[in-house]
Formats: sequence, C-alpha cells, structure tokens
Amino acid sequence: MRAIIFLLLLVTSLVFPAFSSTMLVEKQVFTTTAFKTFGGQTIEEVKVGFESYGTLNQDKSNVILITHYFSGNSHAAGKYHESDPLPGYWDTIIGPRKAIDTNKYFVISVDSLVNANVHDKHVITTGPASINPATGKPYGLDFPVVTIRDFVNVQKLVLESLGINRLHAVMGASMGSFQALEWAVAYPEWVGRLIHVIGAGKMDAWTVSALEHWALPIRLDKNWNNGEYYASNPPIDGLTATMLNITQDAMHPDMFKASFPNFEVLDKGALRDIRTQPAVIQTLLSRAKARAQTQDANHVLYLVRASQLFIAGHSNDYQQSLTKLKSPSLILPATKDLLLRPEMAKDLHTALKARNKDSEMAMLEGSWGHLEGVFAIAAHADKISTFLARPLHD
Amino acid sequence: MRAIIFLLLLVTSLVFPAFSSTMLVEKQVFTTTAFKTFGGQTIEEVKVGFESYGTLNQDKSNVILITHYFSGNSHAAGKYHESDPLPGYWDTIIGPRKAIDTNKYFVISVDSLVNANVHDKHVITTGPASINPATGKPYGLDFPVVTIRDFVNVQKLVLESLGINRLHAVMGASMGSFQALEWAVAYPEWVGRLIHVIGAGKMDAWTVSALEHWALPIRLDKNWNNGEYYASNPPIDGLTATMLNITQDAMHPDMFKASFPNFEVLDKGALRDIRTQPAVIQTLLSRAKARAQTQDANHVLYLVRASQLFIAGHSNDYQQSLTKLKSPSLILPATKDLLLRPEMAKDLHTALKARNKDSEMAMLEGSWGHLEGVFAIAAHADKISTFLARPLHD
Repeated sequence: MRAIIFLLLLVTSLVFPAFSSTMLVEKQVFTTTAFKTFGGQTIEEVKVGFESYGTLNQDKSNVILITHYFSGNSHAAGKYHESDPLPGYWDTIIGPRKAIDTNKYFVISVDSLVNANVHDKHVITTGPASINPATGKPYGLDFPVVTIRDFVNVQKLVLESLGINRLHAVMGASMGSFQALEWAVAYPEWVGRLIHVIGAGKMDAWTVSALEHWALPIRLDKNWNNGEYYASNPPIDGLTATMLNITQDAMHPDMFKASFPNFEVLDKGALRDIRTQPAVIQTLLSRAKARAQTQDANHVLYLVRASQLFIAGHSNDYQQSLTKLKSPSLILPATKDLLLRPEMAKDLHTALKARNKDSEMAMLEGSWGHLEGVFAIAAHADKISTFLARPLHD
Repeated sequence: MRAIIFLLLLVTSLVFPAFSSTMLVEKQVFTTTAFKTFGGQTIEEVKVGFESYGTLNQDKSNVILITHYFSGNSHAAGKYHESDPLPGYWDTIIGPRKAIDTNKYFVISVDSLVNANVHDKHVITTGPASINPATGKPYGLDFPVVTIRDFVNVQKLVLESLGINRLHAVMGASMGSFQALEWAVAYPEWVGRLIHVIGAGKMDAWTVSALEHWALPIRLDKNWNNGEYYASNPPIDGLTATMLNITQDAMHPDMFKASFPNFEVLDKGALRDIRTQPAVIQTLLSRAKARAQTQDANHVLYLVRASQLFIAGHSNDYQQSLTKLKSPSLILPATKDLLLRPEMAKDLHTALKARNKDSEMAMLEGSWGHLEGVFAIAAHADKISTFLARPLHD
C-alpha cells in the first residue's frame, strides 16, 4: 500500500509541480478538562494534536477546518521535515496557490479523539490507551463511547481557544465528511461552506455491519483480552486482519489489479499446502502488519463505534436535522466507492435539495474506489477553489 | 436470514403455484478410493452425497448436472419429507413442468469435497474433518488442498458410476459457476450446454483477498489451534464471524435495508457502552452463529482455498483454456452483485465472444446482490428453459 501511495504521489508531483515545494508544518497540542461526551459521560482530560497552514487574518474570517478520515490524522498537508518521504494526505490541494490556498486561508486540522495511530509520534489523542486518572492505568474499555459529535465538539474547543467563532468552510473525506456534515447541522451559524467528500449523511444497516468487520478480528485475537493488553502483548494479528479489511473495503478491484500486475491465480505455494497463503495475501498481510504497528486496537474499536453511530445531527430524526443546515454544500462521491457507496452521498444531496438547500454534487471518477477522495482529490481542485470563493447568500 | 429466505419462498410459492407440489428426494452416497487430486496428492477414500430428480432416459442423454455454491450442498430441489419447512435452493426452477423440467431431464447434484456443512445430517462429504486412515484421527490441515477441478473430477466419477458420459447441460451459481465452467473447459466433449450464474471465469486479486476475509477470523479464534480442535471446543466464534462476512458479501445494502425496517442508527445500547454491539449486529451475529453450528471451520478454509485458486482450466494461461470450450454458454450475472461483480461475468462473456464462442448473457436485476442468483433465479426461468431446449450446432 505504501509503495502504491508513494508511486501515486510521485506521479502527482510530476503533474502538479507546486507539490514539490515543501511547506513545513508542526504539530501543536490542545488540552481541555472535564469534557462532556454526547453520551453523557465525562472525560477528565482530553489532549489532542492539531496542525495549521497559512495565517489567521485579523477578523478571523478565513478559517477552513479539515476533518480527517478513519485511519488518518491532522497531517493534511506539508511536511514536518524537508526529508519526510511524503507530505500530508491532501497536500495536492492545500498549500500556497493550491485549491485551498494557504496564502489566503488559515487551514486547521485536529487529531480525532480515539485516533488509531497512538504509536505514531506525530499523533496526539485521547482514548482507551490513555491513562484513566481514576485508576492510574489505561482506560481500556472503561473509556466512554465517543461519537462524531464529540470529535466536532473537541474541534470547536480548539477553534475557540484561538478566538475563532466562524468557519469559512469545513471539509472532510470519509469519516471526515461525517464530521464536516455534523458541523453544518449541529453548529449551522459557524459553517460558511461544506465540502463533503466520499461520505454519507448517515449509516445504513449494511455499512454498520461492514464496519463491524473491522472490529471482529480484534475481538477474536487471544491477546485482546477484553481490551486489557496494555501490560502484555497487543492483539497485533487481529489488528493486522482489520487493516487488511480496511484496505479491502477502501480499494476498488481495478486498483488491486493495477497494484499486482504479476498476480497469478493458480498460486503454486497455496496449491501445495493449506498452511501457505497465496502470495498476494502474504504481501497484503505484511503491509497490513506494518500499518498495525503504529495503531492501537482498542482505539480502532472506538473509531468503528463512532462511525457506526453516525447520523447527521445525532438524532434518529434525520430529515429534521438536515433542516438545520444553512451552508451551501459541495458533495464529492467517488463513482467506484465500494464502502461508502456513491448512492449514500447522492441520497444526502437529494435530501438537501428536497429541503431547498443549496447543494452541488460532482463525481470523482477513477479506479481507486473509496480512496479516490484521499489520493485523487486534485481532480476537483478547480471545483473546490471556485466553491470556496463563492459569496454566501446571507 | 432464514426468516428472509422463508418469506421470499412464501411469496414465490404464491406466484409460482407449481412450487407447492412437493417433490420428495433422498440423499444417496458415492464412494471411491485412491482419489488423485489436481495438486498431485492422494485421498485414500472419498465419500460424497448426491441427489437426483427425474428419470435417466435409456440412452442417458438427458442429464443436467447442478453444481452448488460455497455454503450450499446437493439439495438443489424437492424436500426430504413433506414436513420440511423449505425445499432445495433452486426448487423454483427444478421440478415437473418447471424451467428445468424433471419430466424431461434427469437432474443430478453432488455434495462437494470439503463441504462446509459437515454437521448437517443431509450432507455427505470428505475433508479435513474426515478420518485420516494413516492416523485414525481427523486429517485437520494434513488434508490435501483440493480445487474446483477436483470437485468436477469427483462429480465425473459419480456420473460414470451411473453409466453417464455426456451432459445435456451443466449449471451452477457462484462457486457452482466455477465448477460448471471448469466442466466445459476440462471436459468439453461431455458438456452440451453451460449455464453460468453469478459467477466468474477466474479470480482476481481483490476477490482472492475478499475470500481470505472468510478464513482470517477462523485462524484468529484461539480454539482453532492450527486446525486441531476435533477433540476439544471448535472455533465457533471465528466461524460465526466468517458466516457474518459471507452474509455481508452476498447481500446488497438494499436487501439489508429491507431486512431491518426498524433499524436505528443512533443505537442506545451501543452509545452507552463499547461492550454492547449495535442491535443490528447482535441480530446478524445470532443468525451467523446458528449457521455456524452445522459447519466445520477447517472445511470452510479449504473451500476458501479452492475458490481462491479458481481459474477456468486451472492453468495460468486462461485464454488458451477458454479455447477448449465447445458448448454454448448462458451467462447470468446479478446487477447488484458486490462479491463476484457483474464485470467478472461480463469479462468471461467478452472473452468467449472474442474466441467466437456461442455465448449469451442476461442480467439478474433485483436487490439481493450476489444472492439474486440463488433466491431469485426464477426471473430467468423462460430463458433457461429455452436455452436448454436449443439444438446444438454439431
């Protein structure tokens, strides 16, 4: 997977030369105490990382919030060091003179609660792997369930700490689209414009079940031990299977095909012995295991839960919640998305139009599948910059 | 799931009154010794069950072989007892005066090697749960890897034991389509007509990986113990997760939606505690666990492997293999199939046409997804009966 991403970014850098100029960024920390969750519980201390690109203007009216996807973090653009092999995931559209022009906008992104990448030194998050002040030990499954609304509420506190009370726009892909939409529905006075990429307005039964397949392998791992593994071996095999599941759901078969040009169905090793997995599986598992090293299994379970519970407005009266939205929306589904199928974003677009909301939709074409919205977003760079420049109705 | 199937069959029985007349069938047994696998190993004794409907004519020219899908068995039509709640899976098209008219054809189906349903009293199969004569204990993972070609070769032995050396047609859905196509390519002189339902001509990297997700939960279950669980507790949790995976891949989101009309995203129990799964997951898991009771986990691993290794002709020179096919083909993909995507069957159709083969394709429309080809095949009843009645070129 990393090899593929690297290759793609290399190609992208040839097509978009601006990409090669390095924007250096650094992770900052925000701390708050006695955070009340949507579910009514309290987290004594919440600490999250955040990044920003560009400069906050005097009246603090040029803020664009970027909300990140499931396995992502706030590193949306730039590099920490000139020598970093890769920049943040949306570097093709965020930076000086790019679609989200950091000469004009102050772009900010926040590491989510229960972020998966606990062991990535650039990620700062609070979740089940954090120390529970009541016991002096990691929370494990005693950590409260958190929702997309809670992710939004933490971001709101970060923004308020900077004196911000208005967003020029909020934009996110996948689980980031949930947060962006939740912003527009929960805090409509804040949100100027909404850009909703490879997302949905709410979960359906199939998707809730699909997400459960990212949790089941972790729960099956004998090292998981009901979430109490912090003093022993972590459930790395289960987490590896989960990472493989995520890749499976996020990449279209056409991209698998392109990634394995030498794939042979009649795999000699796999034919010889049931204990030998097909070569393509061995490769995928070794990549998945590498990804699993920086992640925490319990955090993944909490991210799954937050995603499963997502419905715009966090009330089962979806239509009523959508009524609250005030911003114009740009909705960008991917044609070949097998996870958050384009029908889901189309349903949102239709529901918004039915309520006389200003909504525009454009498809991301290409072979990535779900990941189209992460790796190939630059296809809609012009549309994004035009949408961001649109004056508002009121 | 059972409730849905039952409901569907109930509806079907109102639309097709012929369905209500019970055709009683019984499972028969075939045994052979020293069976050579495609991989070059020997299985000392192979025992499989089979069923037949209709009467073999004098010149044995009216035989239609039905090859079954992954979690199915040879019970394609009829009932064992008047009181059975459900008939065989394709009962809507197999029977007197149905699309596959048992007043005219002798229809036969054989339980596959390594059939999953080891603990179903109506299934007779040989696989890792069978006793290894060399040790007096179950084979476990010492059982040889078997392929779709081996399934076909066992069927050929069953047919030969009945004096049959020609098939009027061979027809199968999903993994059954693999066997049907393999027949047409490996034994072209045998096969008069091929009906290939919700299938593919070969696996691709994405599908091999999708199938691996049916194996991973079993391997993760602490009770699996490298396949040696026959004297202890079987890996039922892993097998349950696998069954849930199969349902996920086989049913389109639209059918999930129809199956859970009271689904609520903001699930109160799941919001309260990470240990409580959403209600929809609890329901799916309890159905999956019920299915797991009749299955053997190692057998599922072997079925996964047989499917992963499938390429028509069992040679990596696919185009050359397709050249060998002599029969006309009727290819029936399902529009909403998310597992063996319709593109796969279309690719087969295109490849056959490119080789001047007689191939006809029609889509199964509807909300089932992959399962369309199992539960809603009657939509193409006329097409099937017409295709079966077609005279052959030579």
